[in-house]
Amino acid sequence: MIRIGLDVMGGDYAPDSVLKGALMAYSAWSDTFQLVLFGQSSVIQPFLKSHPEFAAHCDVVFTEQVIEMAASPVRALVEKPESSIVKGLEALHAGQIDGFASAGNTGAMLAGAVLKLGSIREDIRPCLMGCLPRPNGTDGIMLDVGAIADTKPETLRDLALLGQVYAQTVLGIEQPKIALLSIGEEPEKGNAVTVAGHKLLAEMGNIRFVGNVEGRDIFSQKADVVVTGGFTGNIVVKLSEKFFEIAQEYNCADLPFFKRLNYETYGGSPILGVNKPAVVGHGISSPLAIQNMIWLTYDIARTGLCERIHSALKHE
Amino acid sequence: MIRIGLDVMGGDYAPDSVLKGALMAYSAWSDTFQLVLFGQSSVIQPFLKSHPEFAAHCDVVFTEQVIEMAASPVRALVEKPESSIVKGLEALHAGQIDGFASAGNTGAMLAGAVLKLGSIREDIRPCLMGCLPRPNGTDGIMLDVGAIADTKPETLRDLALLGQVYAQTVLGIEQPKIALLSIGEEPEKGNAVTVAGHKLLAEMGNIRFVGNVEGRDIFSQKADVVVTGGFTGNIVVKLSEKFFEIAQEYNCADLPFFKRLNYETYGGSPILGVNKPAVVGHGISSPLAIQNMIWLTYDIARTGLCERIHSALKHE
Repeated sequence: MIRIGLDVMGGDYAPDSVLKGALMAYSAWSDTFQLVLFGQSSVIQPFLKSHPEFAAHCDVVFTEQVIEMAASPVRALVEKPESSIVKGLEALHAGQIDGFASAGNTGAMLAGAVLKLGSIREDIRPCLMGCLPRPNGTDGIMLDVGAIADTKPETLRDLALLGQVYAQTVLGIEQPKIALLSIGEEPEKGNAVTVAGHKLLAEMGNIRFVGNVEGRDIFSQKADVVVTGGFTGNIVVKLSEKFFEIAQEYNCADLPFFKRLNYETYGGSPILGVNKPAVVGHGISSPLAIQNMIWLTYDIARTGLCERIHSALKHE
Repeated sequence: MIRIGLDVMGGDYAPDSVLKGALMAYSAWSDTFQLVLFGQSSVIQPFLKSHPEFAAHCDVVFTEQVIEMAASPVRALVEKPESSIVKGLEALHAGQIDGFASAGNTGAMLAGAVLKLGSIREDIRPCLMGCLPRPNGTDGIMLDVGAIADTKPETLRDLALLGQVYAQTVLGIEQPKIALLSIGEEPEKGNAVTVAGHKLLAEMGNIRFVGNVEGRDIFSQKADVVVTGGFTGNIVVKLSEKFFEIAQEYNCADLPFFKRLNYETYGGSPILGVNKPAVVGHGISSPLAIQNMIWLTYDIARTGLCERIHSALKHE
């Protein structure tokens, strides 16, 4: 049975929100996968005692250190070897779990994923992927959404490949349409990195490159995979969250599209480009978000995404 | 009386949409300013004949060449000296009109504004400004939204100053809060240009710099002026248009905030950093958008924005 590790200590509302989310995931999918909780014994034990049925389906790894949300990532990884993030990633590397999810310190998860799991190829920088709801009910994806602030043209090529394999493997889109986010549809429109990146993407024989798309095309059918640098990608994702909040204020957040703009729907951002399935949740994760982050991690582990990325990039 | 020039030939739905918009603007504000129509006689004359009251309040400059929407900007300016855009900008430079608005070829308007009107300071690159509706009913602004695709840290400083003077002069905000768009609130978060730009903005003694804001803060009270490069700014603006369209599909576009997300509300983007008031409208401009573009141009001319920018930047 697939084993999904969960960082009980990560997130603004941890551990309560995380444990509640774990319980929700278990209630719906109890015999599909096994959860492995990483966190302080003083936190986990009382919860398991009061939820014996859940406890019977969980494994636990007690980790007494906690990496704070605002801690400096690399320093935190070095100074807190007994933290839930470090122990979780180590267990993932060792094959004791098949995926690891945390709504904790994103920087620590990213740096930790590189350090503990390793990049899929030496020259690949891990990125964060975001899901894009589309008005027709299907999902697209965008990457990078915040890991790589300064993007080179070659990075955009890697992102296209990572996104392609994700769309094929997890979303089941056989030949995903891949587009480059820019400020005009013509190849020569954009900033220097995008214009050079467009050329590289157009030369790739192994993707279905549909050219540039603009901001208005992000939540559309024009592309299944939107490739962009982490600076712009992050701003797009956070702006979309804001629109969801505004829709909430106006009581129209239950409309199908707006509902899926809610960060809780997807639960987290996979770290792509490392050797094992690691997923980062939103700092503010609610129990529902945690539940969905667990399912997302399970989906990535179940479908063998990392292995498929590995073989796709090996032949590059 | 202030004289506002209007490019009758510019826009996907020109000249019909433009003439209808001019009529709307006239009907509401007939004795506030004078419109000067730039366009082909075969287009303008029949319209004026059928609207004699409107005709009595209009001046006309017949221009027989038309710069197409997709034309190469600089070549178009050279090859079409008798076009509405070239003639309009020349009349503006000569003081025959006090502002000029076009929903035509944006690149031609930008390049033409530099060539015909001149930059306010030699080293300043003109930018496009966008209005930001805020849920509390007030407006903020963002710049650049598409003119400067590759931004240097020094550009961000110019944008901050231009935005400050606009917010003071046109929006009437005495001490506008100025923020830098980035992917984290901490000064060290962002891409290389933003991190360096943050330092420059923090060192400026003549602005109220409130630090970095994130994508989720764009439509908020955190800042009155959001400074960003033209690549990201353009994507934000076009994504916002998409959200308006989606709100329309769900029949909630009449809710106060969504309504103001509509590009028609503001009508256009001022070109800031040139010596005279020039405004670019959306290619798809409807009559309502044209009307509001005319009013925006009038507001900029009426308040003496360019003179105030000139004296603010002279002392820099």
